Amino acid sequence: MTILETVREPRDLKKLSGADIGALTGEIREFLVRAVARTGGHLGPNLGVVELTVALHRVFDSPVDRVLWDTGHQSYVHKLLTGRQDFSKLRGKGGLSGYPSREESEHDVVENSHASTALGWADGLAKARRVRGGTGHVVAVVGDGALTGGMAWEALNNIAAARDQPLIIVVNDNARSYAPTIGGLADHLATLRTTDGYERVLAWGKDVLRRTPVVGGPLYESLHGAKKGFKDAFAPQGMFEDLGLKYLGPVDGHDVGAVESALRRAKRFGGPVIVHCLTEKGRGYGPALAHEEDRFHAVGAMDPRTCEPLAPAGGPSWTSVFGDEIVRIGQERADVVALTAAMLHPVGLGRFAERFPDRVWDVGIAEQHAAVCAAGLATGGLHPVVAVYATFLNRAFDQLLMDVALHRCGVTFVLDRAGVTGADGASHNGVWDLSVLQVVPGLRIAAPRDAAQLRAQLREAVDVDDAPTLIRFPKESVGPELPAVGRVGGMDVLSRDEEPRVLLVAVGVMASVCLQAADLLRARGIGCTVVDPRWVKPVDPELPALAAEHRMVAVVEDNSRAAGVGSAVALALGDADVDVPVRRFGIPEQFLAHAKRAEVLADIGLTPVEIAGRIGAAPAVRERASKERTEEKSEEKDV
Amino acid sequence: MTILETVREPRDLKKLSGADIGALTGEIREFLVRAVARTGGHLGPNLGVVELTVALHRVFDSPVDRVLWDTGHQSYVHKLLTGRQDFSKLRGKGGLSGYPSREESEHDVVENSHASTALGWADGLAKARRVRGGTGHVVAVVGDGALTGGMAWEALNNIAAARDQPLIIVVNDNARSYAPTIGGLADHLATLRTTDGYERVLAWGKDVLRRTPVVGGPLYESLHGAKKGFKDAFAPQGMFEDLGLKYLGPVDGHDVGAVESALRRAKRFGGPVIVHCLTEKGRGYGPALAHEEDRFHAVGAMDPRTCEPLAPAGGPSWTSVFGDEIVRIGQERADVVALTAAMLHPVGLGRFAERFPDRVWDVGIAEQHAAVCAAGLATGGLHPVVAVYATFLNRAFDQLLMDVALHRCGVTFVLDRAGVTGADGASHNGVWDLSVLQVVPGLRIAAPRDAAQLRAQLREAVDVDDAPTLIRFPKESVGPELPAVGRVGGMDVLSRDEEPRVLLVAVGVMASVCLQAADLLRARGIGCTVVDPRWVKPVDPELPALAAEHRMVAVVEDNSRAAGVGSAVALALGDADVDVPVRRFGIPEQFLAHAKRAEVLADIGLTPVEIAGRIGAAPAVRERASKERTEEKSEEKDV
Repeated sequence: MTILETVREPRDLKKLSGADIGALTGEIREFLVRAVARTGGHLGPNLGVVELTVALHRVFDSPVDRVLWDTGHQSYVHKLLTGRQDFSKLRGKGGLSGYPSREESEHDVVENSHASTALGWADGLAKARRVRGGTGHVVAVVGDGALTGGMAWEALNNIAAARDQPLIIVVNDNARSYAPTIGGLADHLATLRTTDGYERVLAWGKDVLRRTPVVGGPLYESLHGAKKGFKDAFAPQGMFEDLGLKYLGPVDGHDVGAVESALRRAKRFGGPVIVHCLTEKGRGYGPALAHEEDRFHAVGAMDPRTCEPLAPAGGPSWTSVFGDEIVRIGQERADVVALTAAMLHPVGLGRFAERFPDRVWDVGIAEQHAAVCAAGLATGGLHPVVAVYATFLNRAFDQLLMDVALHRCGVTFVLDRAGVTGADGASHNGVWDLSVLQVVPGLRIAAPRDAAQLRAQLREAVDVDDAPTLIRFPKESVGPELPAVGRVGGMDVLSRDEEPRVLLVAVGVMASVCLQAADLLRARGIGCTVVDPRWVKPVDPELPALAAEHRMVAVVEDNSRAAGVGSAVALALGDADVDVPVRRFGIPEQFLAHAKRAEVLADIGLTPVEIAGRIGAAPAVRERASKERTEEKSEEKDV
Repeated sequence: MTILETVREPRDLKKLSGADIGALTGEIREFLVRAVARTGGHLGPNLGVVELTVALHRVFDSPVDRVLWDTGHQSYVHKLLTGRQDFSKLRGKGGLSGYPSREESEHDVVENSHASTALGWADGLAKARRVRGGTGHVVAVVGDGALTGGMAWEALNNIAAARDQPLIIVVNDNARSYAPTIGGLADHLATLRTTDGYERVLAWGKDVLRRTPVVGGPLYESLHGAKKGFKDAFAPQGMFEDLGLKYLGPVDGHDVGAVESALRRAKRFGGPVIVHCLTEKGRGYGPALAHEEDRFHAVGAMDPRTCEPLAPAGGPSWTSVFGDEIVRIGQERADVVALTAAMLHPVGLGRFAERFPDRVWDVGIAEQHAAVCAAGLATGGLHPVVAVYATFLNRAFDQLLMDVALHRCGVTFVLDRAGVTGADGASHNGVWDLSVLQVVPGLRIAAPRDAAQLRAQLREAVDVDDAPTLIRFPKESVGPELPAVGRVGGMDVLSRDEEPRVLLVAVGVMASVCLQAADLLRARGIGCTVVDPRWVKPVDPELPALAAEHRMVAVVEDNSRAAGVGSAVALALGDADVDVPVRRFGIPEQFLAHAKRAEVLADIGLTPVEIAGRIGAAPAVRERASKERTEEKSEEKDV
């Protein structure tokens, strides 16, 4: 039995000797590499927090003490130490979530995986304890990358204001989020990191100054009392302490004893305190450390020795199609620039950055700033392309509306990972944008169905200079080209029967699903037209007239059923007094648990069979069918 | 002719003598008090920036240099100095906007009035100048309150990273936003404010240390070189300089010469620099200074001497109804707590704060934090009520979705100023919430139609402990009670004809509009049912069956037509295979210019006459009418 296997709950850690702890951390690393190589998952971040997590659970008593993991992909070690050692179906249907999950364990609190939230949660939990008179500590573990997010600042400002509210912030500083952390804060943290010796310098300075006689007493005390103290001249924690936060560190985050000692000091402190731990992403695993781009931030299933992927790649990704085309556009147009929020490579801007290093900015985990800065760039005469994951654009909704759209700025938003993404679970699905953005005046939205469309629509988008545009595409590999067989207005007709009863409006990658559903309906004698509107906002002005030629309109989108393209189509039809029934197919009103994308789509009925079945059963379609049969019969009689 | 009248554009300021400037600032204050008393508007903030604005336009050359006003209500003086001195219709239809407006002047850049955006805009404009090789300075004027917003932090982090990108940040520090600014940052600024003498202390320190011999050279140099320099021990600008921002100040913001001098230094500096100006909100106007709550932040039309309002109050406001009821609830339930984002009094929490000072938190201009902190409070066993203006909730959309709703936290959001608000223009209208929030799983939304409903629904909301709820109500005075004549499911029936053709679904305050529209339709022989669903999300399960008894459903909401309650009703009907045509009435896809609320509603056709006209003309209703007439005729024949 390994030591790890003897740890069933956090308290088991407290019995272990120093030697046991050393062995345990080795076992955990081996476990992580083996397990994550099998299923895929977040590897680098978890290798970096092995000792930190062990120390946290030795010093605190979860769940009486609440330990919050910001951007929960760093919680694997925490899972291992809180009774969850079956990683065989990690991130798979029915298996462990890749993030904290309250369903899995009472030791988990915050399960969302958008960054920079843990400090706000901690502030709320700490305040609740005060009001209700509860006991226990609140500990938030945040990465240095997460501190670049505005929410972290808002929370720090409030936490600092509550001077006597105990709250422990562990900054897990690996100098990176996905990629190296940027900005003034990162530089400041770098300064902190290089001051290992400052306590020694300080001691020396004190000694010298104590021995320097000045009027009114030793110079040290007089300087000390003058303002904030001599220590600040050497201890660059100034920023945090200026805010009113006690600062401890920097601490070697891979020295369990050192971390425990700092945490115990923090625990005794009766107010908000920051413990600054230096860690190494990918620690202890050579291939991760050697991978400069992201230190194996997240990996697919792979051979742990060769790091070769176990599953064959499924052709080029949507991301790479975008990444290639934006480079070509950048070559042709010097005014096209790009912004990313700590995701340069994942959103496909790596090659653009290599070619045009002065025309790309990584703003940190700061989607709000990406949008507002883009408004400024556009007003300054450039055309910015803001590339983010679809789910993270929610952070910049107000800025897209008020700064970009109200000011009619030509900004192109590129949403990668739109639609159901699968393994990352509820908070990574990009199934909100087509709904939330319907209200934005002037915004145009494209949902390309294949690579050719993505390339074409990206070019159409960057040509719009007096309004924002947005292009969304999914995570998976791009499928085969789906040629148009006709055109109505700006819409591509993908399939058309004679005397069709049903108009299928296919949003983006749902085109192939719609074509299959049309085949199924056709087999039941129900003729269909399948159109890809290409630009789904605004609704094509020709759509109502086309709809009027059918008995039913079905809108299929990889997005919330509420308020999405289906809603927009229904509105356009009503405005034209075309009262053809509309049915909407998309994501129902629920959060989606982690599983493979195909599994999720099957679970929610977003498949050709379910769609065709639902349409075929609708009275408006059936009535027509029976009516036609009746008409046919009477025609027969007439003959 | 006054001196002010001679200033037609900023360059005219540069010719003025010091004495002229002194006279000019007095004239401006007189103008502001007189003009704003006549129309209403933002008074206190503008009285505070008279000298600062004069100095800015004397040192910089707008519009070649770009001067950005964060939260543009502080731009009145800027308007006066850039050719806009007709304030007679300020904030009225066809008159000057209460915010910067690119339509009004080439000197205006950012016209949105959500706070904390100017730094992001400035970063974008400065970057664009670099890429395009343009000239001119970029100056952002931000309040200390706006610095509490996360966007400001994200921007500062990026601005600081661009070490050699010239950008001037003027912090207009009046120690307040609407109310006194809170948080660790506010305390830090307070420290800065009280360090006028630090340069003197510093000089003394240098002198002492220079004369202290140590090994390797004078102690001062050796300390200086050791880390960030001795100066930091005394100069508490540390926070900004730690980020890499040059700090100048504090400067007396009411001394034109001092401000000009600091701005000229900043202009010569080749990187990002903060000029910290201390100003006094309401400066020079006794009644404003004496008003501790908000220093006449925004006032209605009033007698400038007595400060008595010119228009009679129109009965109790929605805000006060909420404010009274939440105090009663707070007395009954110790677990109910409240959060506000720098708007304690405007959202009606003043009395709650007086009664329960330990159960209310003003988080600063930090809606994101309000939502996340609320999630923490709820998880900690309390029931938080988050009260914000409807338009500002857009800032917290991601947090409401991912932190509150995903975690099924019992949090009640109270949206004041929902719907068309009028005089504040595009960015203050709260016409997005009912659309944007449709996608949030589990969220329940109430739109009370009168004071009794608001009180009742607020109590229903705080009783929900496993999901978020939201209540929205408008800015205006609450109207007379609208009694129900019946009930269907959870819906109040407000009016019911026999054999009705049209079902009017009235959202909140649109109830009275719907009742009037029903009267007009009835007069044309078209019977109506008017229902108030009370809870508009989720759609009442009885609604489809009720709709099926009608020929048309009209949904009327004080919210975007796109994706709102009308969309949700249409979806519910389709899901039930009830294919009664739906028509949506609300805000069209556009930004609304400033004017009185009634004027805006008339302009966009959200009136009983227009709604009745549109419904009466719809084929589905007319066909029925003619069909009935035909039937009646044939019945007549049969008789």
